[in-house]
Amino acid sequence: MSVMNGAQAVLQTLNSADIDVCFTNPGTSEMHLVAGMVTTTGMRSILCLFEGVATGAADGYGRMAGKPGSTLLHLGPGLGNGLANLHNARRAGTPVVNMVGDHATYHKAFDAPLDTDIEAMAGTVSQWVRRTQSVADVGRDTAEAIAAARTASGHLQGGVATLILPSDVCWSAGGTAAPVPAARRPSIDTDAVERIATMLRTRDDCLLLIGGGNMRRSGLDAAGRIARATGARLLAEKSPARHERGAGIVAVDRLPYPRDLAAARLKDAQCIVLAGAGAPVAFFAYPGQPSTLIPSACEVHDLGAAPEALEYLADLLAPHALPLTARASRPGLPSGELTARKAAAVIGAFLPEGAIVVDEAITSDQWLPEATAGAPVHDWLNITGGSIGMGLPVATGAAAACPNRPVLSLEADGSAMYTLQALWTQAREGLDVTTVIFNNASYAILDAELRRVGAFDGTDAQRSRALIDIPGLDFVSLANGMGVPATRARTAEAFAHQLRRALAEPGPHLIDAIVPPVSGS
Amino acid sequence: MSVMNGAQAVLQTLNSADIDVCFTNPGTSEMHLVAGMVTTTGMRSILCLFEGVATGAADGYGRMAGKPGSTLLHLGPGLGNGLANLHNARRAGTPVVNMVGDHATYHKAFDAPLDTDIEAMAGTVSQWVRRTQSVADVGRDTAEAIAAARTASGHLQGGVATLILPSDVCWSAGGTAAPVPAARRPSIDTDAVERIATMLRTRDDCLLLIGGGNMRRSGLDAAGRIARATGARLLAEKSPARHERGAGIVAVDRLPYPRDLAAARLKDAQCIVLAGAGAPVAFFAYPGQPSTLIPSACEVHDLGAAPEALEYLADLLAPHALPLTARASRPGLPSGELTARKAAAVIGAFLPEGAIVVDEAITSDQWLPEATAGAPVHDWLNITGGSIGMGLPVATGAAAACPNRPVLSLEADGSAMYTLQALWTQAREGLDVTTVIFNNASYAILDAELRRVGAFDGTDAQRSRALIDIPGLDFVSLANGMGVPATRARTAEAFAHQLRRALAEPGPHLIDAIVPPVSGS
Repeated sequence: MSVMNGAQAVLQTLNSADIDVCFTNPGTSEMHLVAGMVTTTGMRSILCLFEGVATGAADGYGRMAGKPGSTLLHLGPGLGNGLANLHNARRAGTPVVNMVGDHATYHKAFDAPLDTDIEAMAGTVSQWVRRTQSVADVGRDTAEAIAAARTASGHLQGGVATLILPSDVCWSAGGTAAPVPAARRPSIDTDAVERIATMLRTRDDCLLLIGGGNMRRSGLDAAGRIARATGARLLAEKSPARHERGAGIVAVDRLPYPRDLAAARLKDAQCIVLAGAGAPVAFFAYPGQPSTLIPSACEVHDLGAAPEALEYLADLLAPHALPLTARASRPGLPSGELTARKAAAVIGAFLPEGAIVVDEAITSDQWLPEATAGAPVHDWLNITGGSIGMGLPVATGAAAACPNRPVLSLEADGSAMYTLQALWTQAREGLDVTTVIFNNASYAILDAELRRVGAFDGTDAQRSRALIDIPGLDFVSLANGMGVPATRARTAEAFAHQLRRALAEPGPHLIDAIVPPVSGS
Repeated sequence: MSVMNGAQAVLQTLNSADIDVCFTNPGTSEMHLVAGMVTTTGMRSILCLFEGVATGAADGYGRMAGKPGSTLLHLGPGLGNGLANLHNARRAGTPVVNMVGDHATYHKAFDAPLDTDIEAMAGTVSQWVRRTQSVADVGRDTAEAIAAARTASGHLQGGVATLILPSDVCWSAGGTAAPVPAARRPSIDTDAVERIATMLRTRDDCLLLIGGGNMRRSGLDAAGRIARATGARLLAEKSPARHERGAGIVAVDRLPYPRDLAAARLKDAQCIVLAGAGAPVAFFAYPGQPSTLIPSACEVHDLGAAPEALEYLADLLAPHALPLTARASRPGLPSGELTARKAAAVIGAFLPEGAIVVDEAITSDQWLPEATAGAPVHDWLNITGGSIGMGLPVATGAAAACPNRPVLSLEADGSAMYTLQALWTQAREGLDVTTVIFNNASYAILDAELRRVGAFDGTDAQRSRALIDIPGLDFVSLANGMGVPATRARTAEAFAHQLRRALAEPGPHLIDAIVPPVSGS
């Protein structure tokens, strides 16, 4: 057996944990890892033209694959470009092994132009950060990074583990692969579950707020049984990382984004039981309004994030209950000038079974939940950390993770422009992603926010359009420029025709759906 | 006089320091600053569709305007997206007042989805970071941020000052503008200058390595006089932030990027005098090669970064010397299939007087210095921190700073894709930028780097194309999709025709120049 270099030890350790896809945007300091991927048949490198695409794709991959997504980035500036989508991955609890190449250990002292404090940057989005100091350690460090990415923390099931790999560690001989330690799973406190069960048996004013790993079919089933047996209300966190839904699955509303609407959904709660969700908080602060969404007299109990806790609670309370599930139904096809509402109906009418929907449609998304509630079973991926620019990358990664499932990427024009380079990777890899741009030529959400924060009177609001309107984006040209076939829809009929065709054909497509702006509230 | 809120105090303080342009990508937490910009006629907000565009534009603006560039970003993820170009600004020594909105002070405790450790992120690129705690402090903090951005440090003339502005600080009443303190300028050590003068009088084996603020006409003139009088060789740092050059100005070669070529330029030096440049170091580490470029027996003396130091040295050594300056000359127009070399000749033939050239052409740029050496006087802006994706944003900011000067943005296809959204801002603002994409359909530099780091044998090198080739980018479509007129050139004749036209017309244009890849060494 030949002696491995450090890069090969990294890749072999990743392969041993079934990590066989890496989203890359490498440079000189990562060339031995790149070379290793070419010679290691067990690692597929998916090239991205921008690091935010790589990190968002790793998030989407990790949400769907049942194993960590991985990245390869180029020093501190490359990590910087990837931070926003690592932030979303962190908030999603997605396991991500985030590899960042750096200068050789001995080169750091010279403060070469690309040198930066990678640890400080990585610490803002990672639950684990390590710089490998020597080739002898690199297998062990990789193994611990994988375990760290899978480690539960708080209400999250995993997170970002950043492994900093100096170039000489990778090119030196003497690497050995290491076994991956077991990861800490979310723990279950059976006493707490039993106390909560006792409480739910005796009162009917409780709200069960679910999220995280409970947003899959089995968790929703357990929640539905509890609701049926106890009268507890069901509600879901605002932005579940992955929400399984559709006909035959327990339906649950999500907390709305606007603070006033969210507060209204919780205002009568006397008791909130958290099941995989964090304590509800306003997305932003607004003058004169409290940050928390929990009414002052309301009790809060935390069931813990382990899906086993919710299932245990359901078995205690409702072993034989039959939960209410969504009935199969599709909206009728609308006609006339296209609007976000009509587009939602068309999407509900055509959403294929097993689809993965990635939702970053922002203000245009408000009719989507109802329009798709009775569609065949699908997964719905949301923007967990609020950092826009996740949609196209997450769709890219989800498609790479699930090549036999259609991906529908619902995007806002403003958000799409942060990481549009994802389209190139979709084209190059032939990924089956249909992107719909809800193109309202504005940052429409800011129009509502200007009013909510009380920053404007009527006169100024007119002038503020200069900071909200983003006219002149032609997404057909932009998509074509990266090799993705694209069409434009101005009527509901055209949109229906184009969407049906795009979903039926393999490979990426984009529809530039021209819609009027809708209020963000 | 009406009571100001915090946002208004920030803007009034900026205006008092003649800062009247801000590159913005705001969100909810910045709405009062946005409102303030609409009502404050002294602040022009230039909207960018991605934060890396805003920060790169602030860098380009700061390099050209003689005053700080400024930004407005949205919390930690927005800052994250802007870090790479702030890194370049830091390495350029560009004064940038980098404003980052954050949640309200009292909202931080709730760990809302967008919450992050902004200080840690900002610290990696900033020489000054502060979070304003109260509206009473916001004028003073803004004033100190401006001074900090202008403060010299090491061989740099300024840097990034990050001011974190909680939303409640901005919306609360009671802000007052504050006077801006004087900034620390680079100091001059006259004893050291005189010692270096004595040395240069007695030996003729010295190399004067200039950079930073000495790369303008007057610094180059001083350096040229010293060289003429003492026999010292002249060389410039690899990537000056702003290099004034052309007919009538002292010409100076720059240190090459490839380590072997750079080392060859320095290998005979017995004595290096640094004048605004840092100690020369290899851009990357390579197996078996030292990081430093300074020969082991070579003395190093530092004149300090103050332009006054170099001028004092010139006055001591060569008060009456006439430096050698570049003679006016233009290359002839080439013909036939376009190459990077022929494109350089065309650019040299047409470069307009007073042009600002932003150079991120990477492997395609090697013929540009010679081809443009005798062109009319122009400024040449380089990629200082090695983080690609600076070119289009820096060109955008330079054009905003100098509306009466033509900007020529020379780009590589790979680098362009990091921050292509800059084209939209160029179109919206009608900026006079001509972008040339040297489109070789690859990350050509990595082809050379794979060999330099010894990662590949011949067989693997073929397979590695999958990680280097980036085919299928149509920059005409991409530019049109953002409202920028664009053409494609495959011959030298077509390129000449298109470049002349683009330079003659106001507003942004793009030329997709199809060229074969050239070796990066």
